[in-house]
Amino acid sequence: MSSSPSPPLSLSSLSGLSEESFVAAVGGVYENSPWVASAVFTNLKPLSITSIASLHAAMKEVVETIEEKKKLELINSHPDLAGKAALADELTEESKEEQSKAGLNSLTKEELEQFTKMNEKYKSKFGFVFILAVRNATKYTILKSFEARLKNTRMKEFEECITQIHKIAWMRLLTILEPADTGFLTCHVLDTASGKPANDMDITLERLSGTGPLGVIGSFVTNSDGRLTSGRALTGKDFSVGIYKWTFEVGDYFAKEGAKLAGTPFLMSVPLVFGIDDPEDHYHVPLLCSPYGYSTYRGS
Amino acid sequence: MSSSPSPPLSLSSLSGLSEESFVAAVGGVYENSPWVASAVFTNLKPLSITSIASLHAAMKEVVETIEEKKKLELINSHPDLAGKAALADELTEESKEEQSKAGLNSLTKEELEQFTKMNEKYKSKFGFVFILAVRNATKYTILKSFEARLKNTRMKEFEECITQIHKIAWMRLLTILEPADTGFLTCHVLDTASGKPANDMDITLERLSGTGPLGVIGSFVTNSDGRLTSGRALTGKDFSVGIYKWTFEVGDYFAKEGAKLAGTPFLMSVPLVFGIDDPEDHYHVPLLCSPYGYSTYRGS
Amino acid sequence: MSSSPSPPLSLSSLSGLSEESFVAAVGGVYENSPWVASAVFTNLKPLSITSIASLHAAMKEVVETIEEKKKLELINSHPDLAGKAALADELTEESKEEQSKAGLNSLTKEELEQFTKMNEKYKSKFGFVFILAVRNATKYTILKSFEARLKNTRMKEFEECITQIHKIAWMRLLTILEPADTGFLTCHVLDTASGKPANDMDITLERLSGTGPLGVIGSFVTNSDGRLTSGRALTGKDFSVGIYKWTFEVGDYFAKEGAKLAGTPFLMSVPLVFGIDDPEDHYHVPLLCSPYGYSTYRGS
Amino acid sequence: MSSSPSPPLSLSSLSGLSEESFVAAVGGVYENSPWVASAVFTNLKPLSITSIASLHAAMKEVVETIEEKKKLELINSHPDLAGKAALADELTEESKEEQSKAGLNSLTKEELEQFTKMNEKYKSKFGFVFILAVRNATKYTILKSFEARLKNTRMKEFEECITQIHKIAWMRLLTILEPADTGFLTCHVLDTASGKPANDMDITLERLSGTGPLGVIGSFVTNSDGRLTSGRALTGKDFSVGIYKWTFEVGDYFAKEGAKLAGTPFLMSVPLVFGIDDPEDHYHVPLLCSPYGYSTYRGS
Repeated sequence: MSSSPSPPLSLSSLSGLSEESFVAAVGGVYENSPWVASAVFTNLKPLSITSIASLHAAMKEVVETIEEKKKLELINSHPDLAGKAALADELTEESKEEQSKAGLNSLTKEELEQFTKMNEKYKSKFGFVFILAVRNATKYTILKSFEARLKNTRMKEFEECITQIHKIAWMRLLTILEPADTGFLTCHVLDTASGKPANDMDITLERLSGTGPLGVIGSFVTNSDGRLTSGRALTGKDFSVGIYKWTFEVGDYFAKEGAKLAGTPFLMSVPLVFGIDDPEDHYHVPLLCSPYGYSTYRGS
Repeated sequence: MSSSPSPPLSLSSLSGLSEESFVAAVGGVYENSPWVASAVFTNLKPLSITSIASLHAAMKEVVETIEEKKKLELINSHPDLAGKAALADELTEESKEEQSKAGLNSLTKEELEQFTKMNEKYKSKFGFVFILAVRNATKYTILKSFEARLKNTRMKEFEECITQIHKIAWMRLLTILEPADTGFLTCHVLDTASGKPANDMDITLERLSGTGPLGVIGSFVTNSDGRLTSGRALTGKDFSVGIYKWTFEVGDYFAKEGAKLAGTPFLMSVPLVFGIDDPEDHYHVPLLCSPYGYSTYRGS
Repeated sequence: MSSSPSPPLSLSSLSGLSEESFVAAVGGVYENSPWVASAVFTNLKPLSITSIASLHAAMKEVVETIEEKKKLELINSHPDLAGKAALADELTEESKEEQSKAGLNSLTKEELEQFTKMNEKYKSKFGFVFILAVRNATKYTILKSFEARLKNTRMKEFEECITQIHKIAWMRLLTILEPADTGFLTCHVLDTASGKPANDMDITLERLSGTGPLGVIGSFVTNSDGRLTSGRALTGKDFSVGIYKWTFEVGDYFAKEGAKLAGTPFLMSVPLVFGIDDPEDHYHVPLLCSPYGYSTYRGS
Repeated sequence: MSSSPSPPLSLSSLSGLSEESFVAAVGGVYENSPWVASAVFTNLKPLSITSIASLHAAMKEVVETIEEKKKLELINSHPDLAGKAALADELTEESKEEQSKAGLNSLTKEELEQFTKMNEKYKSKFGFVFILAVRNATKYTILKSFEARLKNTRMKEFEECITQIHKIAWMRLLTILEPADTGFLTCHVLDTASGKPANDMDITLERLSGTGPLGVIGSFVTNSDGRLTSGRALTGKDFSVGIYKWTFEVGDYFAKEGAKLAGTPFLMSVPLVFGIDDPEDHYHVPLLCSPYGYSTYRGS
């Protein structure tokens, strides 16, 4: 198996596949467990997959309904994080890439020992391996999670490992398949000091990481309803997994509104950094602001 | 008059001054109106000024209680923004520096015409000059404010000009005097998903602009009450006028807490950029966060 | 003039009116100043008024553009609050009703003295009468406002009085005219702990005061987008000026969601009381909630 | 055993008890499982219990560290909700009281059938009984929870039952023991439109249910730091388990502040209803408000 990534498959191209080809395509998203893809092929026949989300849901359903003994096997078919398999270069391509992205292939000797010790402690307490979706995590986060999860009960950890496995599957599907064209990003700015939409506020959007060009990818102005005059800020392929940043020119807005502002206002350019994990979904990321505070949240 | 800035005066050094020296020191903060400083000298005699804020309040009080005719004179002792006085290099040192900081000394011909036109329109409508504290403003903000304020009534604009004049005075005092040692910065992080203080969250503090070293100026961890283990993040001279940025490691925190997070979490490193205008005051700048949203505000 | 209220006029019935009838209908909304209505009649001829808001805007425009001397006359055509005119029963019908609603016709002797003293103080400081839209205010609020406003400058108070006069006009128009059918109430509930709309939450709506039946006037359930399955909660005549109350069954919702709740949860039935002032406008009054906190605001 | 409730025991009175008496006192908080209390007696000997929270933590620790088989027995020592044991009047005193408080002793025939069916479905899916802390729940919430939890995996439900059992134990301890004197209630009001503490706002506190007199139990005014002039709103025995309500006079406050308010302001008296579950803890329940919106949360 070569490590050069293949171009992502379209969802429609999955439809005509034989079981063998389907399993070849997506059988690796559950580690060493192609039977998940096989079962999905059988359950969904004839295949007509319209979103990564629906394929993921079908695979998840297969896993959720198997017996606990089989779930335990699934858990234990994962390698230790930074463990012997990694040292011996025996990881699956997928695991190798993920562990390396998290920096686990370049641990110091001390760090390696720490991981080994925690892996042993975890396995001896719970009877299965520690699983964490590490693609976007740092060594530091992984160690902190490790410590925290060692305090759980076995049952809680068992559930947590299955949850992490589904998350790993999701992230692997995202690298293999082209998402459906359904996702988009919207915004809304509300002036909570005046109880009205913030009209004529300048906003820029940057992609800090992820698929597509980085840097400023959009400049917007709000309309009298506080929404972007262009409606959606990102759609289609531009709406990709990654980390994004709004910058709201809150200071300019309130200056124009005649708000009493300090010489150095409390708020001027307000940055808002957020992740897009599901490229097929709608992300509404609004700002509620006054000259002295603001709120944001993933809305709908 | 030379444009090289003098080192700031200590507040205590004001106490021994004669009226003449006092007016020489702070008489320029109200444009071309040393009589404000004179009146303060008389009102507060013997001088014992313990904070910039109290001196500013005393000067403001003098201005607020004069007759409207005198206030009009005060307004009209200010130059046009980007006007003839600037071209003829006849501005006070203070105005020159402020207008240049806002980029008004490097306008294009078109911009200059636009400013001239708006100045004329404003003066003919209201009978006095347009005043805006421009030290932290851009050409763009100034023009937008200009447009917005042209729609006001004369009385509202009169009041607004006086408000701006007090703001200019405040900013000039900050460049002349060393602030009292009373200001400080605190933080607090609350986990609104669990209704408890966010323990063991990493936070960094950067100075983006202002007095003192720029870049990262502090690294903190929250304690079990969600506050910085070190108590105050900035005190004394380090707590200076400028623009600052907290970065809260919200993603790491919720990962440790075992929150259900997406592969690319909605929130990871949360930036919070805020201005400090009053170096003698307490700024409490907290974060209320869940994995999917947060609020911040200037607290107390 | 009789004090029995006439039934409200439809907006369309204004269209055919002569100037005399139009002024008879709405000339009283600016106290003792029928010339405002006359000017509007002239400006808008032929009359075609489609909303109370547009009529109010036209009247306001007339007032805003007159000279300051004329504005001063307008201010001074108002009676003192709880003043001699009231004692002598010489108020306009409109003022009488408003002052009585605020309890100003049943002051104790001490309260009357206090009002008289403040009226005198105010008039001697500013040269005009104190004006406050009192229809929804209590004696207590009025006195507190009085105290606060005595500290303003003359110009600020002049502006404030004009602002209050426009507000009085608005409230008087609302008692005279049937609003246009454009207003409605919507809701949205977001679960900020999970970053998703709150599905299947029970909500009730009560009218606490105002036009129309009091008590529970609607029971709703949120859909998968966190909005009311019925769309708008109130429309048409039911959407009237008054005080309303949502009750959100937040505790039940989070119990169903499997959130970790205390035996006595921090939040169970969450009440949200809000006023509707403009029956022709859209009020969006959402809830952003986690098991341990919530936000609300007038949205759009 | 008689059903008349005994007066609560003081924590100090537990110290001198023999194992037998200790188990007699608190052995019933884990249903039919006095061995939990016995184990705590042994672990903590000599007994010195300073808070209900610490006793609960010790009991919880005992349960968390037993084997899964023993946990299953603990789960199954609970009766069905509204099940045969209830009909046959064979419940423990504690369960009887709790089920009756939730209205489960007065179900209609249809409701009884629904409960019976769900109990059977649950037991046949998971192999143990459905457990829910019902003391503060309604029939409706219980049924909704039942439905939601039937969709979980066995492991998740196992964990959930144990969680509910700890919650039942906590609520039973609260009925048996006098809490330590450490709990109190505080408040803070911040004006987010002006970025400053809300000074001089009136607040009332009511107890809507729980231990102690119901109705208004406190009237407060905020100081210049936005806190109650009296510091703590409730302390000692007055700070008891129950449901409470703040009413903030936000409308009056903003009127005094000179905020532009509508004739019928959006916010006037703002109610905030919250539960106190832990009488030994600090509850900080603040309000962040502007004229058009507010936030609240359990703070610290």
